[in-house]
Amino acid sequence: MVISRTSAARKSEPLYARIATDLGEMIEGGVLRTGDRIPSVRRASRQHKVSLATAVQAYLTLENRGLIEARPKSGFFVRYRPHHLLDEPQTSRPARTVSRDESPTLISRLFDATMMRDVVQFGAGLPNAELLPVQKLNRIISAAARRAGSASLELDMPPGCLALRRALARRALDWGLKISPDEIITTSGCMEALVLSLRAVTKPGDTVAVESPTYFGVIQLIAQLGLKALEIPTHPRTGLDLDALERVLRSGRVHACLVVPNFNNPLGSLMPAAAKERLVAMLARREIPLIEDDLYGDLHFGRERPHVAKSYDRKGLVMLCGSFSKSVAPGYRVGWLMPGRFFESTRDLKFTSTVATATLPQLALAEYMTNGGYDHHLRGLRRALQTQMEKISHAVAESFPAGIKMTRPTGGLVLWVELPARVDSLRLHAKALAEKISIAPGPMFSPRQNFRNFIRLSCGEPWSPKIERAIGVLAYLVKQMR
Amino acid sequence: MVISRTSAARKSEPLYARIATDLGEMIEGGVLRTGDRIPSVRRASRQHKVSLATAVQAYLTLENRGLIEARPKSGFFVRYRPHHLLDEPQTSRPARTVSRDESPTLISRLFDATMMRDVVQFGAGLPNAELLPVQKLNRIISAAARRAGSASLELDMPPGCLALRRALARRALDWGLKISPDEIITTSGCMEALVLSLRAVTKPGDTVAVESPTYFGVIQLIAQLGLKALEIPTHPRTGLDLDALERVLRSGRVHACLVVPNFNNPLGSLMPAAAKERLVAMLARREIPLIEDDLYGDLHFGRERPHVAKSYDRKGLVMLCGSFSKSVAPGYRVGWLMPGRFFESTRDLKFTSTVATATLPQLALAEYMTNGGYDHHLRGLRRALQTQMEKISHAVAESFPAGIKMTRPTGGLVLWVELPARVDSLRLHAKALAEKISIAPGPMFSPRQNFRNFIRLSCGEPWSPKIERAIGVLAYLVKQMR
Repeated sequence: MVISRTSAARKSEPLYARIATDLGEMIEGGVLRTGDRIPSVRRASRQHKVSLATAVQAYLTLENRGLIEARPKSGFFVRYRPHHLLDEPQTSRPARTVSRDESPTLISRLFDATMMRDVVQFGAGLPNAELLPVQKLNRIISAAARRAGSASLELDMPPGCLALRRALARRALDWGLKISPDEIITTSGCMEALVLSLRAVTKPGDTVAVESPTYFGVIQLIAQLGLKALEIPTHPRTGLDLDALERVLRSGRVHACLVVPNFNNPLGSLMPAAAKERLVAMLARREIPLIEDDLYGDLHFGRERPHVAKSYDRKGLVMLCGSFSKSVAPGYRVGWLMPGRFFESTRDLKFTSTVATATLPQLALAEYMTNGGYDHHLRGLRRALQTQMEKISHAVAESFPAGIKMTRPTGGLVLWVELPARVDSLRLHAKALAEKISIAPGPMFSPRQNFRNFIRLSCGEPWSPKIERAIGVLAYLVKQMR
Repeated sequence: MVISRTSAARKSEPLYARIATDLGEMIEGGVLRTGDRIPSVRRASRQHKVSLATAVQAYLTLENRGLIEARPKSGFFVRYRPHHLLDEPQTSRPARTVSRDESPTLISRLFDATMMRDVVQFGAGLPNAELLPVQKLNRIISAAARRAGSASLELDMPPGCLALRRALARRALDWGLKISPDEIITTSGCMEALVLSLRAVTKPGDTVAVESPTYFGVIQLIAQLGLKALEIPTHPRTGLDLDALERVLRSGRVHACLVVPNFNNPLGSLMPAAAKERLVAMLARREIPLIEDDLYGDLHFGRERPHVAKSYDRKGLVMLCGSFSKSVAPGYRVGWLMPGRFFESTRDLKFTSTVATATLPQLALAEYMTNGGYDHHLRGLRRALQTQMEKISHAVAESFPAGIKMTRPTGGLVLWVELPARVDSLRLHAKALAEKISIAPGPMFSPRQNFRNFIRLSCGEPWSPKIERAIGVLAYLVKQMR
C-alpha cells in the first residue's frame, strides 16, 4: 500500500488532481485491480461533487499516468501494468549441441489432465469455449450444410476450399502480406501445416533450429521425424536471440529454422519488426527455409496486428503456418500453409497426409470470415484474454513466494513462470493435479527437459473465484516445495 | 449372338423352358444387358399367354442358369456374369528387389484431372455424390451443430469421439472383430491412419512389403517416409501370393507389411478367409506388424461382408485402417485406426499429425451410424456400384480390341484392364484427357512404374449415355495405339 501524502501537500493540489490521486492510490494499493471498471465520469462528478469537466480532467490525468484506460462504449478500466509486476525470466541459455532425445512421454500426462473434467485448466493452451462464437458458428455451419448440397460430402482436394483461401488472402493484408489464394494450402490445423513444412524441407538426421523454450508438440514432432532440435537462446520479450542464431548458422549445420515470432508459446515473446526482417535476411542469405508458426498472431493486446516474418520474404523461403484453433474453432481443425517456393511438394505431402481438409468446416469458416463478424469477435476475445492474463498475473505476483519471475506478454494466452530453483515442476504438476488443477511443467518445453523450475500457466479460462482459489492452492504448493 | 436352335427341337420343350430359352437368347445376345430389369412375372405371363406358375418356373430356370437374379422389392434383373467376360490378368511378377525410387510425379497429373470439371471420371476412385446420402447427412450435421452447443467448437482429443468409437465397435462385429471403443483411434481419413501406422512401426530405411500393383498414394507415402517398398506378386482374384511373401519373409528384410485384403485398389482382389488367417499367422510368427487397409470392405457385392484379417489377430500386431470416404462422406475426412498393441504410440503420433479429428463430422457420423439408416444406404450403394461395374465391364469387353484382359471384382469400385502390350497408358491418359476423359494409368500403381500397358477404370459414376460414349472413345484411342 502506497502511503498517503500529507494533507498539507494535498490541499495545494487542484481538485481534479486530488481526485486522480485518490483513485491512483486505490489502484496502487490493490483496492481497484487490473481490469476492474472504475466509476463513470458522470458518477465521479456526483461522488466528488465536482463538475463533469473536472472529473474528465481527473480521468485524463490517470490515463496519462498509465493507470486507467478508456474502452470504447464500455467506460474506464484499470490498466494492465506489466512493468509493475514481477521481474521477467532471463534470456534462456540452452546447450549448444543438438538434442537426439527420444520424444518425451510427458505429453501423455498433460493429455490425460486435459481430458479430465472438473479440472482447472492452467495446462491447456486454448481459449475456453465461453470465449468462442459458438452460436454464430453453429448457425453458419448448419446453413452451410443445407446450402452446399452434395458439395458438403465431396472431397475438396488440395490446395483446398477456394472461398476460404480468398478470405485468407484478404486477411493476410493485415499481417503485412500480399499473397494470392493460389499460394495457400488449407490444412487440418496448424500442426499439419508444421508437419508438411518440416517434411518438405528436411530429411531424417537434419538439424532444425528452434526457440528455447518451445512448444512441446513441435519438440515431439521433430524427434518423431528423426530430426535433431537445436535450441537457440530466446528473450522472454523480444524472442529469438539473433546473434546466437547467427553464430550457429555460421557453423553450417542448420537445415531449417522453426520460429514463433508472434507470441511464442510458452514465452509470449514478440519479435520486433526489425528483428523479423533480420531473421528472414539471415536465413535467405544461406537459403535456409524458415517455418513460421503464426498461431497466436491474432491475439495481440496492442492496437496493431503484428506483421508476419513472411512479409519480409523475397525468396519464397518462408513457410507460414496458422490456424483458427486459438481464435475461433479448435474443433474444426482448419489451418493453412503459405509455403512459398515449396508449394508443389507440400501440396503432394498434404495428399499423403490426410488427402484433403474436411469440406464443411472450411466452407463455414470462409462464410464466417466474410460475413460473420470475425473482427468483432477477435476484438472481444483479445480483450477477454488480456483481462484474464492480467488477473492471473496479479494473483500470481501477490500470492507466490518472493523471487519468482514471470513473463509480461503483450499477446497470446499463456504465462511462463520461473519458480524458486528448488521447485521441481514435475512434482508440482502431480501435486496440483491431485487438487484438480492442471499446469504445464517446464521440461515439456525443452528437448533436454530443461526448465525444471518453470511452469506455463494458460489464461484461457475466464476469471472466476474458482481460478482465484486455484492460484492460491498453487502458491501454497510452491511455498511447501521451496 | 448365340444361334437359335431349330424349331423342331424347341417344340419338344415344355412351355416354361421355351420362354426361358427366348429370354436367355436375348441375354446371351446382348439385347438385354447386365443390370437391365426384365419384365415382371405377371407381365411375362400376359406376354406369353401362360399361367403365372409357368412364368415363375421360366424365371427360376433362368435364375438357376445364373442369367438373372431376383432383387428384393425390385423384381428380376440380368445378372453380372464375370465368367462370360474377358480373361483376367495374370498374377503380377514384380522384381524381387526393393524400390528406392523417389515418389512419382504422376500423381499431380491425376490430381489436376480429378479437379477438372466436365471430365468423365474414370480416374477418381470415389463413388459419385449422387450415390451418397447427401440430404440425410446434411440434415444430421445441421442438427448436430445446433444440439452440440460449444462442444462443436471444442477439440475432441485422441482417441477421438466416444460415440463414434462405440458405433464402430458395434459395427466391427460384422467384420468378424470383437473390439472395445478404447482400442480405436479416430483419424482424419484412412490415409492418416496409414501414415500413423507406418510411422509407428518403421524407421527410415526400413522395408515395407506391399501388393503389386498397389494404390499410388501408399507408394508415394512410403517413398516420402524414406522407406523402401518391396512388391509382392498378387493374383487379381485372390490377392497377395502368400508363398511369394513367405519366401521374402525368410530373407528377413521386411519390417512391416501393408495389405488391402478386401477389394484391393486397383485389383479388386479379395483374399479368401483362410489366406487372411495364414497371412496373419505368418507375420505373427516373425513379430512383423501387418497394416491392414480395409477402405473397401463395405463395398462387397456378395451377401456376406468379408471379414478383416485383424479378426485372426492374436498378438495385437494387426493395425486396421478404414474410413467413411468410400461409402458415406469423402469430404468429412473421418477414418479410424485399430492399432492393436501400438495404441499408445499411434495416439501420440496422431497428436503431432493433426492434434485431433474434426469434431462435428465425427458427431454426425456417430448419429448416422446409430440412427441414420447406414445399412440401408450401404445396400443401395453396393447394388449401384455392382451395376455400374457390370455395365462398364460389358462395354469394355464389347468395344476394346480383342486380347485385352480385365479383372472381375466381387466388390469395390474399380476395374483393372490389361491393354495390348504396345499401348502406353501414360500416352493414353494424355490423349483421353484431351477428350475430357480421365483414367488412372498403370505405372501409378507401382514404385518402379511397371504396368505400362494397364489402366484402372473407376466405376464410381452412375451409368449414362455419356459414360457409354466415353468408353467408346477410350476403345477407339486404344485401337489407334495398338
